[in-house]
Amino acid sequence: MNSIFKVIPGSIVAPRGFLASGVFCDIKRLGTGKGSEKGRKDDLALIVSDVPAAVAGMFTMNQVCAAPVKISRTVAAKNFARAIVVNSGNANAATGAQGMKDAREMAQLAAKALSLNQNGVLVCSTGRIGVPMPMKNVERGIRACAPRIARSRSNARRVAEAIMTTDTRRKEIAVEFKVDNRSVRIGGICKGAGMIQPGMATMLGFITTDAAIESKALKRALKVAVGQSFNRITVDGDMSTNDSVIALANGLAKNPQPAIRNSQFQSALNFVCLELAKMIVRDGEGTSRVVALHVRGAKNDRDAELAARSIANSALVKSSWCGGDPNWGRILCALGYSKARMDENRVDVGYAPTGSGEILFAFRRGRPTNVALKTLAKITSASEFDLHVDLHLARGQFVLYGADLTEEYVAFNKGDINDPATLGG
Amino acid sequence: MNSIFKVIPGSIVAPRGFLASGVFCDIKRLGTGKGSEKGRKDDLALIVSDVPAAVAGMFTMNQVCAAPVKISRTVAAKNFARAIVVNSGNANAATGAQGMKDAREMAQLAAKALSLNQNGVLVCSTGRIGVPMPMKNVERGIRACAPRIARSRSNARRVAEAIMTTDTRRKEIAVEFKVDNRSVRIGGICKGAGMIQPGMATMLGFITTDAAIESKALKRALKVAVGQSFNRITVDGDMSTNDSVIALANGLAKNPQPAIRNSQFQSALNFVCLELAKMIVRDGEGTSRVVALHVRGAKNDRDAELAARSIANSALVKSSWCGGDPNWGRILCALGYSKARMDENRVDVGYAPTGSGEILFAFRRGRPTNVALKTLAKITSASEFDLHVDLHLARGQFVLYGADLTEEYVAFNKGDINDPATLGG
Repeated sequence: MNSIFKVIPGSIVAPRGFLASGVFCDIKRLGTGKGSEKGRKDDLALIVSDVPAAVAGMFTMNQVCAAPVKISRTVAAKNFARAIVVNSGNANAATGAQGMKDAREMAQLAAKALSLNQNGVLVCSTGRIGVPMPMKNVERGIRACAPRIARSRSNARRVAEAIMTTDTRRKEIAVEFKVDNRSVRIGGICKGAGMIQPGMATMLGFITTDAAIESKALKRALKVAVGQSFNRITVDGDMSTNDSVIALANGLAKNPQPAIRNSQFQSALNFVCLELAKMIVRDGEGTSRVVALHVRGAKNDRDAELAARSIANSALVKSSWCGGDPNWGRILCALGYSKARMDENRVDVGYAPTGSGEILFAFRRGRPTNVALKTLAKITSASEFDLHVDLHLARGQFVLYGADLTEEYVAFNKGDINDPATLGG
Repeated sequence: MNSIFKVIPGSIVAPRGFLASGVFCDIKRLGTGKGSEKGRKDDLALIVSDVPAAVAGMFTMNQVCAAPVKISRTVAAKNFARAIVVNSGNANAATGAQGMKDAREMAQLAAKALSLNQNGVLVCSTGRIGVPMPMKNVERGIRACAPRIARSRSNARRVAEAIMTTDTRRKEIAVEFKVDNRSVRIGGICKGAGMIQPGMATMLGFITTDAAIESKALKRALKVAVGQSFNRITVDGDMSTNDSVIALANGLAKNPQPAIRNSQFQSALNFVCLELAKMIVRDGEGTSRVVALHVRGAKNDRDAELAARSIANSALVKSSWCGGDPNWGRILCALGYSKARMDENRVDVGYAPTGSGEILFAFRRGRPTNVALKTLAKITSASEFDLHVDLHLARGQFVLYGADLTEEYVAFNKGDINDPATLGG
């Protein structure tokens, strides 16, 4: 892959003409006091393009969708946008009419502070659901953040941190490639650790590029890339109310527009999205093991997806992964209660070291093999491994990146009712 | 309820003409040696009716269904049966043609040892999936168990223990009521702690009754009772390969047959099944809290069920229950990604002490209420509580008994690859 593009530093400000920064304004209301950022990470950020950028967005399919998602969906349906205002600590979801008013006000405040038209501003929020937005803190944050949006003070790292909730690591990447001898760059950041089973999108992901590409072509390319990345990961099977992936393309690479369609743009965008998506799984709440699950031989791709999701979301399968146990019995069980058509007597289940393709079969054509448990466990006790399931019915296939279920996940999410700061989003 | 029937001791041997007992034959092959039962619970049992009994059975809908399920399904479709042979420690599922041969042999061995016709013997297995049955141990067990099946040595407690896998408690009950001045008894035992989201049945459940009732009427009554009990519980959302509920009615109560149909038989059977089902949830692997989830106001009952299962199987909702956190945001999120039709602005979410009906609303008509978190947490930190969700769309409703997700569940199920005895079914 790296032969057609190279990974570069800078994440979302690597592409020409993008500025971004973050601030702390205590949106979770931890009561650390005005201005005191001590020990607290940023929780509000702005991302701006110098010039109008082609825009594309994909959003959660959850029927309970957050107020900012409703607003951003409308903005992303247009051709151009200029900026994104985003906060962590509060999802502004299940907040009724007040939530819509608050999300609109966030766009207005950001537009005013950046001297932009409000219609070009997207809004994203992530954090606890069902709690009103602390708008005074948000307003203070936007006013403090806007002056930081200057070429010399631009700081993508603060943005990547500001969108983190239960994430333990920043998730960022950038690549560069050539289109007709013009260098084109794509940068991306994302967040997500729990409530991860994106439907049409992920938690929050922001992609910037200086590619010159039409809005329509960008929307199409983003859909393809998201379908092969963010929509192929699961941490806990919970689809969030706030999932959003937004791409802005400002054209400052000045590549010839027709050339971009047949260029490496799609491959580079796919790579950026898949790398970001894998970072989410690796940083999943309490995750100790990541499994790349390859299902093939299904009646069709939809069946392969049903089978994969059933396996990767089974509490028992995920618990066995935690222990490094190659428990094919639980995999067969989860396959059986999925809606995917199958014939027990044709199924193969095998394990391979990550990306090796050297599959050791635990179960073949409906029967346990003689491969020793210890031999299989050598593969499954690594921090990442590949799981291959072949239904031997037809050509349907699907790849899903999943994670184990650990005691840490539960400890993390059970919270402490005496300490509201521990209550999750 | 107790006005029409009373709870009595004796479980499955309380009804007249039923005999049962269990033995230890090391089916899990823990290597404790022949005959040494020290520290090991029974793992094989026989249940026999003195006379042919009307039979009914309901079985897993998992496409990977165990060999014994395939055999018992055929026997239960007939009018009469005489005995059940059951083992724990090995599920005889995903075991191919050899598994079918082994299950058939189990029926043959039991029939021979009990001097019965093989066609009247049902077979049930539970335990690890995808591992061949140790038939030598099974044969030794059946031969040792048959002589115990005598009135003086009959021991329902040993059966209730023999079917346990990860269960920590025996699950048994019996009731008595009158039909035309004849006393009629129903007894029941079951097992189940993990891999619990029965589809048309539960893990293993055995109901005996001396009621005189036609096979057809028994089958109908069992379907109703299972639909309102075992099919309304979930521990971890994993539907087993071996779920079976079997009822035997031998008629020795000599009640007039037509009278049974309009009698309390159905209520008593419902009660027995629901009590057994609740025992499974309370004894769920690592369970620290049981939640009775009442969904109403859905478009129809099917939608209410979809909403209830989405909530009760959400890893995040279950983790919050573990901490006693009334996290309505996660409930809204799980509702939103369920396939149930809903309008976020109409939804109510409330909590009540078990069975009290005194609902405190956390969320009403799409908005958080002002009820303090601490007040709600008083309810949700009890070992059992009721959760009420009203969609305010139409009259669809469903009740589901769920459990929390705990660190203990994961610790329990992750196993230790160096100790095969810890690897779960």
